[in-house]
Amino acid sequence: MTPLKNDIFIKALLKQPVDRTPIWMMRQAGRYLPEYRQVREQAGSFMSLCMHPELACEVTLQPLRRFNFDAAILFSDILTIPDAMGLGLYFTEGEGPKFKNPVCTVADIEQLPVPDPCTDLRYVVDAVRLIRKNLQGSVPLIGFSGSPWTLATYMVEGGSSKSFQKVKGLMYEQPAAMHLMLDKLAQSVAAYLNAQIEAGAQAVMLFDTWGGILSSEDYIEFSLNYARQVRALLKTENDGQRVPAILFTKGGGLWLEAMADAGYDALGLDWQTDIRQARARVGHRVALQGNMDPVSLYAQPAVIVEKVKTVLEKYGPGSGHVFNLGHGILPDINPDHVKAMVDAVHQYSPAYHQ
Amino acid sequence: MTPLKNDIFIKALLKQPVDRTPIWMMRQAGRYLPEYRQVREQAGSFMSLCMHPELACEVTLQPLRRFNFDAAILFSDILTIPDAMGLGLYFTEGEGPKFKNPVCTVADIEQLPVPDPCTDLRYVVDAVRLIRKNLQGSVPLIGFSGSPWTLATYMVEGGSSKSFQKVKGLMYEQPAAMHLMLDKLAQSVAAYLNAQIEAGAQAVMLFDTWGGILSSEDYIEFSLNYARQVRALLKTENDGQRVPAILFTKGGGLWLEAMADAGYDALGLDWQTDIRQARARVGHRVALQGNMDPVSLYAQPAVIVEKVKTVLEKYGPGSGHVFNLGHGILPDINPDHVKAMVDAVHQYSPAYHQ
Repeated sequence: MTPLKNDIFIKALLKQPVDRTPIWMMRQAGRYLPEYRQVREQAGSFMSLCMHPELACEVTLQPLRRFNFDAAILFSDILTIPDAMGLGLYFTEGEGPKFKNPVCTVADIEQLPVPDPCTDLRYVVDAVRLIRKNLQGSVPLIGFSGSPWTLATYMVEGGSSKSFQKVKGLMYEQPAAMHLMLDKLAQSVAAYLNAQIEAGAQAVMLFDTWGGILSSEDYIEFSLNYARQVRALLKTENDGQRVPAILFTKGGGLWLEAMADAGYDALGLDWQTDIRQARARVGHRVALQGNMDPVSLYAQPAVIVEKVKTVLEKYGPGSGHVFNLGHGILPDINPDHVKAMVDAVHQYSPAYHQ
Repeated sequence: MTPLKNDIFIKALLKQPVDRTPIWMMRQAGRYLPEYRQVREQAGSFMSLCMHPELACEVTLQPLRRFNFDAAILFSDILTIPDAMGLGLYFTEGEGPKFKNPVCTVADIEQLPVPDPCTDLRYVVDAVRLIRKNLQGSVPLIGFSGSPWTLATYMVEGGSSKSFQKVKGLMYEQPAAMHLMLDKLAQSVAAYLNAQIEAGAQAVMLFDTWGGILSSEDYIEFSLNYARQVRALLKTENDGQRVPAILFTKGGGLWLEAMADAGYDALGLDWQTDIRQARARVGHRVALQGNMDPVSLYAQPAVIVEKVKTVLEKYGPGSGHVFNLGHGILPDINPDHVKAMVDAVHQYSPAYHQ
């Protein structure tokens, strides 16, 4: 494999010295880019984009042509695993992801298979391989998956939810069945991420989008325990290189100490969490990724620059920080505003690495 | 005024000894009760219920006839102040509250009046007086208002929002105008709550429903600062009795230390916050209210009892705890499940007050 020309993202995750703060952006390949919308329209559907490696590769590379990002992230969906389990993922306009066959009974859970990524999710593995090749070592490639808990919420609710009544009902009333499902998901997620690593992903990220709807004790028992299980099963090296792993729980700012103890190299922070306080709480143990408010990208560039400076100043001097938003970029952001953010990180972060 | 027959709610807020943990429930007068739905249907609209003191009084008292709650809360809406400012509050089925005349420009903000509660919000003040009279001293009456920040979000967005793009845009790009609006709202909220206190409210609560969407620094500057300003303007005594005040920020668990410093007697906790840790962080300064997951009321009564026991055990021995949900009760909960929760608090909490 080609050696990396720019490895500051990997180095920052491992808290090794860098000369500026690396930056990438959650959902950097996405609807805010006109060139993405064009490919998406030709593909016909979102899932068609995910399932054709050459299209997934193209949209993965698009943001890197525009912006000086320090990492690429596989273009895919967090719900590919439940789809491979036979739940039938589809998308409806404005309502988000749905499953044709949601998990309703304990028998449904008992029958859930652990997918083989090399066959059942081959389109993802092929996309990783193709993207890695096309990157030609310019920047590292991030693989990812939804967390076991987050996958479980969609599988039981049958889609997005407001109150999460069904999945919490299962958790409260049938905890053993819930644990069985989460255990199968942890095995599936680990196998899936390992296949991505073997295909060329140089770092991996676990997206726990819905951990933050749980009480503290339920978060530890039903979400974090399985994120830890995933991490324990992950390859930590490939091709002689360390493969760092990032854990992101949206709404998880209260639980950073427990999260820092789950074996990950870095924690993703949402924008509500104060990154200065987060570093004081856990920064001796893990790197931190984040955490500008995604909505601030609507503001004028001069305001955006100030917001970037605030995040950099709050993290402070030294390695261990990967600049990012606190959640995915919103679909109607002006790409020029993204450029203002990226340029500001390039301009103002070297002062923190002298 | 009739002296209180049951004052354990007030005592717990002031951290005075009680013989069991008091309990009430956010949105205890509401759609989960068939008798509420009947009155609501007769009234024709939600606002008609709020605007007719005899109807507001009736639905306020309904949950107290069913359950051994230790407080009544005024039946009203958090958006009465912007309505009195001339924004034209109305409700659409399934989309929540809306304003006919949202705040769009700096000129709109400059023209916002500070309403006189005794004239512009007289229907609320009359309702408080009538409810207090009808309670006949059985339990204390809680008055309430939306927080300045939370009111501002609805006023600028024109209703509910997902990304809060407009109000954050104003905050980022016109901070002086935002501060002017919040200052007017703080004055309005304080005058409104003082009018409720003078009419008979024996405690007040500030609902900061949307403080949790802000970054830490924006929360302090744009939400908490104005909650503090409101508190500084509030009457702390009426009719020779101390009037405690509660501050509730949904999603505010990260900021409890700062919140405990804003002058309130108690903090409301959402269900994500660990009440044991919260007590360790701020319980020497304020009482705590909460914080069972509202979704757990869907579970069978035996599960609910265990959830109640967990919250009581986590708060631990001694006064300073008011039992509540971590957010409002959901509209399709079975009232028998509420009874299971209330009975469990009555049964298991005395052990913590010996």
